[in-house]
Amino acid sequence: MQTAWKEYQEKNQQRFLDEMLELLRIPSISAKSECKDDMRKCAEMVKQRLLDSGADKAEVMETEGHPVVYGEKIIDPSKPTVLVYGHYDVQPPEPLELWHSGPFDPVIKDGKVYARGSADDKGQFYMHVKALETMVKTNTMATNIKFLIEGEEEVGSPNLGKFVSQHKEKLKADVILISDSSMISMENPSLDIGVRGLSYIEVEVTGANRDLHSGTYGGAVANPIIILAKMIASLHDENNHVTIPGFYDDVVNASKEERELMAKAPYNEQEYKDELGIKETWGEKGFTTGERTGIRPTIEVNGIWGGYLGEGAKTVLPSKATAKISARLVPNQSSRKITDMLLEHFKKIAPPSVKVEAFEHHGGEPYMTPIDSKGYKAAAKAVQTTFGKEPIPVRGGGSIPICSILEKELGIKIVFMGFGLDNDNLHSPNEKYNLENYYKGIETIPYFHKFFAQE
Amino acid sequence: MQTAWKEYQEKNQQRFLDEMLELLRIPSISAKSECKDDMRKCAEMVKQRLLDSGADKAEVMETEGHPVVYGEKIIDPSKPTVLVYGHYDVQPPEPLELWHSGPFDPVIKDGKVYARGSADDKGQFYMHVKALETMVKTNTMATNIKFLIEGEEEVGSPNLGKFVSQHKEKLKADVILISDSSMISMENPSLDIGVRGLSYIEVEVTGANRDLHSGTYGGAVANPIIILAKMIASLHDENNHVTIPGFYDDVVNASKEERELMAKAPYNEQEYKDELGIKETWGEKGFTTGERTGIRPTIEVNGIWGGYLGEGAKTVLPSKATAKISARLVPNQSSRKITDMLLEHFKKIAPPSVKVEAFEHHGGEPYMTPIDSKGYKAAAKAVQTTFGKEPIPVRGGGSIPICSILEKELGIKIVFMGFGLDNDNLHSPNEKYNLENYYKGIETIPYFHKFFAQE
Repeated sequence: MQTAWKEYQEKNQQRFLDEMLELLRIPSISAKSECKDDMRKCAEMVKQRLLDSGADKAEVMETEGHPVVYGEKIIDPSKPTVLVYGHYDVQPPEPLELWHSGPFDPVIKDGKVYARGSADDKGQFYMHVKALETMVKTNTMATNIKFLIEGEEEVGSPNLGKFVSQHKEKLKADVILISDSSMISMENPSLDIGVRGLSYIEVEVTGANRDLHSGTYGGAVANPIIILAKMIASLHDENNHVTIPGFYDDVVNASKEERELMAKAPYNEQEYKDELGIKETWGEKGFTTGERTGIRPTIEVNGIWGGYLGEGAKTVLPSKATAKISARLVPNQSSRKITDMLLEHFKKIAPPSVKVEAFEHHGGEPYMTPIDSKGYKAAAKAVQTTFGKEPIPVRGGGSIPICSILEKELGIKIVFMGFGLDNDNLHSPNEKYNLENYYKGIETIPYFHKFFAQE
Repeated sequence: MQTAWKEYQEKNQQRFLDEMLELLRIPSISAKSECKDDMRKCAEMVKQRLLDSGADKAEVMETEGHPVVYGEKIIDPSKPTVLVYGHYDVQPPEPLELWHSGPFDPVIKDGKVYARGSADDKGQFYMHVKALETMVKTNTMATNIKFLIEGEEEVGSPNLGKFVSQHKEKLKADVILISDSSMISMENPSLDIGVRGLSYIEVEVTGANRDLHSGTYGGAVANPIIILAKMIASLHDENNHVTIPGFYDDVVNASKEERELMAKAPYNEQEYKDELGIKETWGEKGFTTGERTGIRPTIEVNGIWGGYLGEGAKTVLPSKATAKISARLVPNQSSRKITDMLLEHFKKIAPPSVKVEAFEHHGGEPYMTPIDSKGYKAAAKAVQTTFGKEPIPVRGGGSIPICSILEKELGIKIVFMGFGLDNDNLHSPNEKYNLENYYKGIETIPYFHKFFAQE
């Protein structure tokens, strides 16, 4: 088998790459209303690619938001079925001035594809489409395969829950396979066993009913930027613990065993700092960098603006200041509960000299997958086969809000098999995906199906 | 005299207005490099207007920045000379979406002219040009008049100091008259006896060398928005005193007598709050609203930005956050000293997990004018004549950085005779100037010259 897969893949590498690039050229930014047509164009292309790659059927299915692409290849109803989840939407590319090439004008440099969505998630879900083609063309399908490729992951999958519950029969499967995460390195392959949850809100502080002259009124009227800054500053204490009452109440602390296992993962503090260009790391006292991003909940400010942002100086005492604020959650925190807690907190701590309005953007629950599950074992064995090394189980810091919904609705476990790297610049300028990882993924995926069928 | 002035003015009111509107249509924004040509166009128009209004000569004079307009009408070298200072540049109009009409497309509504620069300062300095015409055409000039109309007041007059010292002879005068401030109300006329100084800086906080995924790195890498928020939050204590060591060292506290006099100025807290749409005022404990904006130094954040400012949600841990921060100063604080203090302070309090860069935009010294000076007395008498009420001496909260420079270079006192109102929306959307104040100013100014010549 291996030889057949390798041969087929090597013969078609250039085309596999060209097809990915074509997907990357579509600005499928789900957060931007002006990209609506590009979203559909992208969905149609994914559907056609599934058919071209050997799916029995594929369709673009409507939701109240951006459409979902569904596809399937059923070889034998008695065989196990793998549901592949991915998303064809991408993060906004801003700030554009920091990109070395156009975010939707893919460039290959040093064996890497630079483009928004190259790693998150077009390049990664497309590995599964090309793995399907590889197995079909070499007559080596071991399982039935279904594809659920959504278009709203980057905005919190507001419509997928409803979609899944409406199509339970169609999506029926034995395991869910997701490549939307990263591994430590090619030398140290790893598999995520969990993702953090998310609560994302926006807070607007209003002082006077209009921008004021900072001389005429400065010192006598509350400055919403200063008030918002005080609110944000109060979110963490001197040890960088979150100060919001009740924030940690539902946190299930990682076991001593898990923390010891995590400590074994290769980590070089100096390399980490050098790669990010920072003098010191930052975070909650009493936890390592791996723990801070893996097993601990956090609060970040993702954006802030108020007053005069233009060239030069303007002596204005602004009327409004706004911030986008999000929390990453761990088991068993509830996104709903934390979101409400955040919304109430900012209203509660607002001084009477300002008005505060806060609303929710989106959220998602944290998720954990057991390492003794059939799916995890098949993934570990597949990685071991192609990387020649047993993968390290790690907790990912990111969020895939749909995980808990998929498990709840379909009653099956999720397996994360990500081939990206932490330095792929996800959600940042110059996002990239290494070609080596792309091809290695396409080579590894068939083994997952093979071993999952054998288990 | 009075009848002649009143008659002439009433006959020409419409033209006086039309001429002001024409000036307001030029977007002379000194802070914006793309407005360079409009700045010159505006200067040329001011020059021509001076000539048309009876000046013996007028010229557009070069500086290293935007040009200065000089004009003069010398009736008799033995008579006293009044130097009128004003500025033809304006503040940036942003945020544009809050304007009810175009900032450079003046609209007359309810007896008010709505346009950027209507009160600050085109509409106000132009009163002096029309007062000149009135006196010339009615043969009632009592003093020599010189005009110094600059184009960089809103960016801190970086080149005027040099200009003035290079043209001391040309600018030689007995008093400087400035209409670039406001009075309490038409019913309660007032004259500023001082302006606050200014120190304006920009602070940029940098964390990682690129925007990061807030999931992958959130909790382990310093968030520059949170760090900047903590820095800003630390600028004021719980009583809203500025916490920067040494900030108040050079402050000359206002005398008990002056504070008692200030307390006499009409002030209705409820009206003040209602007009601004705020529930409570804010400010330094132990001082009234009038004192907070008049005799106390302050620190304001004029602008802040960082991370994702776009539509929807982006889970980014930003690389940079920036703030524009300014302090208003009172006698005898030094702008240079406070600016350096601010720049050093932000670098000093920066934690090692971030880099902080801070630079100066501009500054200006505070200024006080004695109420027993010849000029102040002439202004008070002029206001009393046309308003029928003795003006209240007040300290203005704004800054006119050039004041201390003019006094230092020319060795003469400055008299503030502002006809604007605090609610003219200076530096804000929908800046306006009341026609009543415009005409009243043109009517009052000739009396200043008359009384100043008599003193």
